[in-house]
Amino acid sequence: MKNQTIYFKKQPRIIATSTIAGTKECEGVIGRYVEVALSDDMYGETTFEKAECKMLSKVIDGAITNAGLKRDEVDMLVSGDLLNQIISASFAARDYSVPFLGVYGACSTMAESLAVAATMVDGGYCKRVVAATGSHFASAERQYRYPLELGCTRPPQSQWTVTGAGGALVADRGEGVKITAATLGKVVDYGITDVNNMGAAMAPAAADTILTHFRTTGEDITAYDLIVTGDLGALGSRILKDLTWEKGLDIGENHVDCGEIIYNVIEDEYQGGSGAGCSAVVLNSYLYSKMMSGNLKRILFVATGALLSTVSSGQGESIPCIAHAVVLER
Amino acid sequence: MKNQTIYFKKQPRIIATSTIAGTKECEGVIGRYVEVALSDDMYGETTFEKAECKMLSKVIDGAITNAGLKRDEVDMLVSGDLLNQIISASFAARDYSVPFLGVYGACSTMAESLAVAATMVDGGYCKRVVAATGSHFASAERQYRYPLELGCTRPPQSQWTVTGAGGALVADRGEGVKITAATLGKVVDYGITDVNNMGAAMAPAAADTILTHFRTTGEDITAYDLIVTGDLGALGSRILKDLTWEKGLDIGENHVDCGEIIYNVIEDEYQGGSGAGCSAVVLNSYLYSKMMSGNLKRILFVATGALLSTVSSGQGESIPCIAHAVVLER
Repeated sequence: MKNQTIYFKKQPRIIATSTIAGTKECEGVIGRYVEVALSDDMYGETTFEKAECKMLSKVIDGAITNAGLKRDEVDMLVSGDLLNQIISASFAARDYSVPFLGVYGACSTMAESLAVAATMVDGGYCKRVVAATGSHFASAERQYRYPLELGCTRPPQSQWTVTGAGGALVADRGEGVKITAATLGKVVDYGITDVNNMGAAMAPAAADTILTHFRTTGEDITAYDLIVTGDLGALGSRILKDLTWEKGLDIGENHVDCGEIIYNVIEDEYQGGSGAGCSAVVLNSYLYSKMMSGNLKRILFVATGALLSTVSSGQGESIPCIAHAVVLER
Repeated sequence: MKNQTIYFKKQPRIIATSTIAGTKECEGVIGRYVEVALSDDMYGETTFEKAECKMLSKVIDGAITNAGLKRDEVDMLVSGDLLNQIISASFAARDYSVPFLGVYGACSTMAESLAVAATMVDGGYCKRVVAATGSHFASAERQYRYPLELGCTRPPQSQWTVTGAGGALVADRGEGVKITAATLGKVVDYGITDVNNMGAAMAPAAADTILTHFRTTGEDITAYDLIVTGDLGALGSRILKDLTWEKGLDIGENHVDCGEIIYNVIEDEYQGGSGAGCSAVVLNSYLYSKMMSGNLKRILFVATGALLSTVSSGQGESIPCIAHAVVLER
C-alpha cells in the first residue's frame, strides 16, 4: 500500500456479473442492461427484507452461473448491505457452503467488497470470490426514515434508495474486466447532520478519496474514460465537482454518478438514486457491459457510503462518510 | 486457500494489544490483565453508544501506542461492532487518517478483523494494521432486547454482553504473537429461533469451523495448548463439545470459552459473557499475556457470531451463525 492505494499486480478480474432491479429502476437507461427486471418489488416474498435478501441471493447465484461455475467452485463470499446486522447478506450466505466475510460500508459496499475480493485473489489466497450487495427502497425507508405506510413527504434534497442488487465474480484468470488498483477511503466527516441530505454528507469523502488516488498514482484525469461515483445524486455531484476543482482537479467532463443516471426522470426522485444497490446495479450491468464491449477502457469506480445510524443521528451526531475507489480496466 | 483455510507464510504478528473493560468484567480473572479498568461503565459519556465508541477508540489508540507507533504510522483500520451500522467502529475511525474497512461478523468480529488484517499484511499490501472490536452491555440490551429501564428479567439460557473492547496491532515484523493461519467460517443455521439462547445457536457454527480446520490441516488436537471459543457460554460450550465429539474430535481437555471465564461467578450472568467485546478482551489481555510470557505456545482462537437482527427474528427467521478461527503461535 502506497498512501491509501493498493496495486493488484496479478490483476484479478471480474469474469462475470449479475444484476436485478425493481420496476422503477428498470424504466431508466440501465433497464435494458439489467439481467433480471422485477415486475413486482416484493419479488414473491412476504416482507421487504426477505425480498431484498432474495435479490442478493439471485445475483450471487447469477454471477456464479454466468461464469460457468457451480456454487462449490467459489472460494469465498464477500458481502454486506444496509440493513441492521447486514441480514440480507448473512441470510443469503446460508445457501453457500463457502467462507463468508461480512462487510459494512453502507452504500460503498460494492467497492469495499470488490477491493477485499481482489485482495484475496491477488494475494493468492482465493481463486474465485463473489462480491455482492444490494438494497431495497421499502426496507431502507422503514429502517432509516419512516415506514411507507405513513405516507411521509420527502424533502427536495433527498434521494431514492434503489431496489436492486449486483454481484461480481472476481477470479484469478479468465476473460473479463481487470481490477488493477484500489484506493481505500478513510472516514471523513464535514459535520452534516441532515439525514435527508446524503449527497452533501458523502461528497467530501468522495473528493478525499479521488484526490488521494490521483495524488498517489500521479495519473492524469485523462487516464480514465470515466470517474464513476456511487450515489451522490445531483446535489452531491455538484458539491464533489466544486470540492475537487478547488483542489485543482477538474473532473467535470469525465464524471458520472450512478445515482444521477439510474432513473429515467431524475426529478421524480429528487436528487436521484442511492443505496448500496445503486452503484452495484449500475456497475455490474451498464458499466460492465460497456467495458466488455470495449466502449469504456478504464474507469475509476468510487462508491460512497454514509456511516450513520438512526441512533447516532438521534443522539445529535453528524454523519461520517467513506468512499472506496477501484480501478477497472479492459 | 485450501478448503476454508488460509496460510500466512510471512507470519504477520500481533506486536501489541490494548484492552478496556467494565466494572463487572474487571472483577473476574481477566481483571488484572486488562489495561484500562473502568470505574464507571458510562466512561464519562452521556449515552451508552458513545461510551462504547470511546472504549473502541481507546483500544485502537492503545494498540498503536503500546507498539511504540504514532497514529499516522498505521496503514489501515479493520473494525466492526454489534450496533446497527457498526457506528462504534465508523465513528471511532473518524479520528484516524487511514483507510477503514468496516466488517460485520457480530461476536466473531475479533477473529474476522484479525484474519483480514493478517491477509493485508501477509499479502504485502500493508505493514501495520489495527484490528479492533468491542461491545457494551447496555447498548446491546437496548438494541437487541429491552432497554435496561424496563427491568426485564432474563431467562436462564441467556448470556451477558460484555462491556469492553480489545484491539491488536498486526505488523509484518517485530516481536509478538504470530498469526500463521485462519480458517474462515461459513454461515451455519441449525434452526434455533430463541434469541436468548445464543450459545445453542452458535455452537454448530463453532463445531463446523473447528472440524473443518482440523480436517484441512490434518493436525491433531494436541497441536494446540488451547482451543478458545469466543462466547458460547456454559450451555453453548457443552453443545460444542457434544457436536465435535460426535464427529470424532474430543476437544474437552483443551477447550476454554471466553464467555465462560470472563466473569467471576458465572452463575450471576447465567451462561456467561457474550458480545464482540468478550473474546476481544480475553484474547488481547489474558491470552496475549500468557502467550507473550510463554505459558501458552499455540492456540486456536475461534470467535463465534450470531447474525440475527431484531427484524429477522421478528419476521420468524432462525438465527444464522458463523465462526472464524485464527491460529496464533508464539
